[in-house]
Amino acid sequence: MSAYGTLEARFRRLGLLGGAASMLHWDWATMMPPGGAEPRAAQLAELALIRHELLTDARVCDLLDEAEAEADTLDDWQRTNLTRMWRRWREAAALPADLVQALSEASSHCEMVWREARPASDFPAFAAAFAPLLGLVREKAAALGQALDCAPYDGLVGSHEPGLSCATIDPLFDDLASFLPEFLGRVREAQADSDVPPPVSAPTDAQQALARRLMTALGFDFDHGRLDVSLHPFCGGSAGDIRITTRYDEADALSGLMGVLHETGHALYEAGLPKEWRYQPVGQAGGMALHESQSLLIEMQACRSRHFMRFLAPLLGQYLNGGDSADAEALYRQAIRVEPGTIRVDADEVTYPAHIMLRYRLERALIADDLAVDEIPGAWADIHEALLGLRPDNDAQGCLQDIHWSVGELGYFPSYTIGALMAAQFFDAAVREVPALWPAIERGDFSPLFGWLRANVHGLASRYEGPVLLERATGAPLGTGVFKAHLQRRYLN
Amino acid sequence: MSAYGTLEARFRRLGLLGGAASMLHWDWATMMPPGGAEPRAAQLAELALIRHELLTDARVCDLLDEAEAEADTLDDWQRTNLTRMWRRWREAAALPADLVQALSEASSHCEMVWREARPASDFPAFAAAFAPLLGLVREKAAALGQALDCAPYDGLVGSHEPGLSCATIDPLFDDLASFLPEFLGRVREAQADSDVPPPVSAPTDAQQALARRLMTALGFDFDHGRLDVSLHPFCGGSAGDIRITTRYDEADALSGLMGVLHETGHALYEAGLPKEWRYQPVGQAGGMALHESQSLLIEMQACRSRHFMRFLAPLLGQYLNGGDSADAEALYRQAIRVEPGTIRVDADEVTYPAHIMLRYRLERALIADDLAVDEIPGAWADIHEALLGLRPDNDAQGCLQDIHWSVGELGYFPSYTIGALMAAQFFDAAVREVPALWPAIERGDFSPLFGWLRANVHGLASRYEGPVLLERATGAPLGTGVFKAHLQRRYLN
Repeated sequence: MSAYGTLEARFRRLGLLGGAASMLHWDWATMMPPGGAEPRAAQLAELALIRHELLTDARVCDLLDEAEAEADTLDDWQRTNLTRMWRRWREAAALPADLVQALSEASSHCEMVWREARPASDFPAFAAAFAPLLGLVREKAAALGQALDCAPYDGLVGSHEPGLSCATIDPLFDDLASFLPEFLGRVREAQADSDVPPPVSAPTDAQQALARRLMTALGFDFDHGRLDVSLHPFCGGSAGDIRITTRYDEADALSGLMGVLHETGHALYEAGLPKEWRYQPVGQAGGMALHESQSLLIEMQACRSRHFMRFLAPLLGQYLNGGDSADAEALYRQAIRVEPGTIRVDADEVTYPAHIMLRYRLERALIADDLAVDEIPGAWADIHEALLGLRPDNDAQGCLQDIHWSVGELGYFPSYTIGALMAAQFFDAAVREVPALWPAIERGDFSPLFGWLRANVHGLASRYEGPVLLERATGAPLGTGVFKAHLQRRYLN
Repeated sequence: MSAYGTLEARFRRLGLLGGAASMLHWDWATMMPPGGAEPRAAQLAELALIRHELLTDARVCDLLDEAEAEADTLDDWQRTNLTRMWRRWREAAALPADLVQALSEASSHCEMVWREARPASDFPAFAAAFAPLLGLVREKAAALGQALDCAPYDGLVGSHEPGLSCATIDPLFDDLASFLPEFLGRVREAQADSDVPPPVSAPTDAQQALARRLMTALGFDFDHGRLDVSLHPFCGGSAGDIRITTRYDEADALSGLMGVLHETGHALYEAGLPKEWRYQPVGQAGGMALHESQSLLIEMQACRSRHFMRFLAPLLGQYLNGGDSADAEALYRQAIRVEPGTIRVDADEVTYPAHIMLRYRLERALIADDLAVDEIPGAWADIHEALLGLRPDNDAQGCLQDIHWSVGELGYFPSYTIGALMAAQFFDAAVREVPALWPAIERGDFSPLFGWLRANVHGLASRYEGPVLLERATGAPLGTGVFKAHLQRRYLN
């Protein structure tokens, strides 16, 4: 077998073990009894270690070198696959096995502590578990920075979205920071006159049935996936068996449904990846920003629209309201209501970037050792007030609200807002190129949209890095212009 | 670190990966959408391969030799652990990695085919997938026989219950074969006069609530386990997170409840294993016969009794019957009803051994190449008629009814009847040594019984091989006498 072929076989093994780990994470969040956490954490640490060993095994580096020598026998996808393999290897080889295992165990421990500390708003308890984890994450950042020839924090950012760095993020975030506060004021003024329609309340069972109906309309295949409930909605599972979760609020059906549409966006990206490259690095979804662009494209661009609400209104009546169609315009007003608050996951798309910029500033300072763990609550409240005009009541509403840091995921948060910018650009291009797109959505037919996405995003998997893929698909580089134009159209028209 | 310490670390890794695989099996049977089968099979094959590599790695054999030289520094449990490590290594090293992987893939494929072939009673479809799998199982049997210095089929039997072989099984089964047909006739005669009380029907939800109540009475901890539904009831999951399943029949609540009690017997064996040896070979449950003895002890010995039915009757009324207590004596008569049939899992304890002896004869012949795959249906029907006096209507009711062969599990079936013999002997000893046992069960208090089981069975894990453990706990070797006396007492008094 060629060196390249041997590498493909090795990466297939890694892909399968990654799928197994992902499924065990899903079980943890949806099915596992509380006493299962300790053995599960050990299983996941072991799987992480095995994958690290398989990837950093001395033979892999030799094979990568040998495969380079065979490069003229490879086609474009194979050559890109080889590049992606190198990247995976560099990131993994930068981290010693004992650091990988210590990170896995410290993350599992800190997550368990966080799950109790958050409802109790007990920052000191969290800090005691987070401080040692942060030390390990800083070691990881330093190692990644060295291996990828960048600053430590950029090492973390790049490991979530290859091709992204602070040099790209800073001007975008600066532009948003100068645009959004004034814009927010204008939106609040414009919305001050309009009534807030009351939220739609409905039993969980009925909401779930409607959620499944909407997922089916979007193209989710229940022979290859599930919808379940978890505290923190996510899209997980493995190739060919995609598991999304949501949570239901009986007092506000729209919030749960929008969450389902968001996760379905993630799921259909995964489902649209090319099957023949399923377990290879080039066949994986792009980074976290690109992934988030696909969920936000569905939720924010396509579905929080008048067109979609005209499709949803009669269904909402049928499933939740005993047959009488809901009022599409009232649903739309509810879906685009803007209101500054303290909870990121409840934020609307106008205030969301402020939540991200806050976390970006803090985690960058934590990695640079410019901020101590016990300074987080104060710094959080101050920046929160500066950006959004209000302070959280307590740490549960503030710095303890997110799971990310508790599992050692620093460098992830910028992806949400970069993803929002990308989503606006992708959707704008799709609308320009597919005139039938909006009328189809109004009929609940998403096939024109997904036709464009398959051809321009999903089917390309990791053939290009996120920012490059965006420019190829839309003709323009990553920027804030299309996003700002979208906000103007939606919130000030 | 000592060689022995290094081995403990290695076997901890193997134990964790085994737990991960077991959890993925559970998901397959309970949660997975149909399209997930193909990637899941590949994940499980990969995990089997990884475990095989970790166990047969050249360094392990050296470490085992080095640990032998340290034997005088080890305590009794550690020395037994080393013996069990040797055994695991010998069994694994006997099988080349490509055979392990081929077996895993062929099993997953054959199981998928079986799931469609069974309802369709399509033996040829099954046979096409089973014939190549059988070829691989025969290779495995030959390799195990060579490594363990025994006949090929004994290699399979011993891999399910160490210390068990045809030399032990044959005289026991011969004795049962000469006892049971006449005994069955006498039981049928004795029961001919008594009315068959009508089965208790109840909605699934209510049955499930009662099942959970009974599990709690037995001592099942829902913080460390779950109860779910699957086509084929089983006990799975991993240490600290034990997952049992059942199926509910709305027309016959007792059958589902008895199934739950059976699986709870398995689960509490797992839960009673010594935590400090959790991931070591000596800390695992004994073989399949010993495991089955613990489920049969609960279901057949303890719960299909007048005492238990007096505890169950008012609960059955409360959960399923609007408050009015059921009739304990009628429940008991229903629970001990004997009726020859074609389906093993529906069989009573008097006819069950016939189903096992049938499978034992056939699978032994298959491994010895004395029976071809396409001869199975005919041979099945003939032996079935000889032992039970009736022929299955079709292959769905006959040779396609069980999952075992479809997943390559030959050598497993004898465990069920050996387990029944052991269960009778263990329970008999417990009753003799703990006078309060029966009155406690009548109150729904299982702690005296589990106190005895923890001390004499569960807490000893794999410290002794099954037949040795049995003799230490009961003072007598494995035999048929206590089982036959139990049958006489229950069915002819």
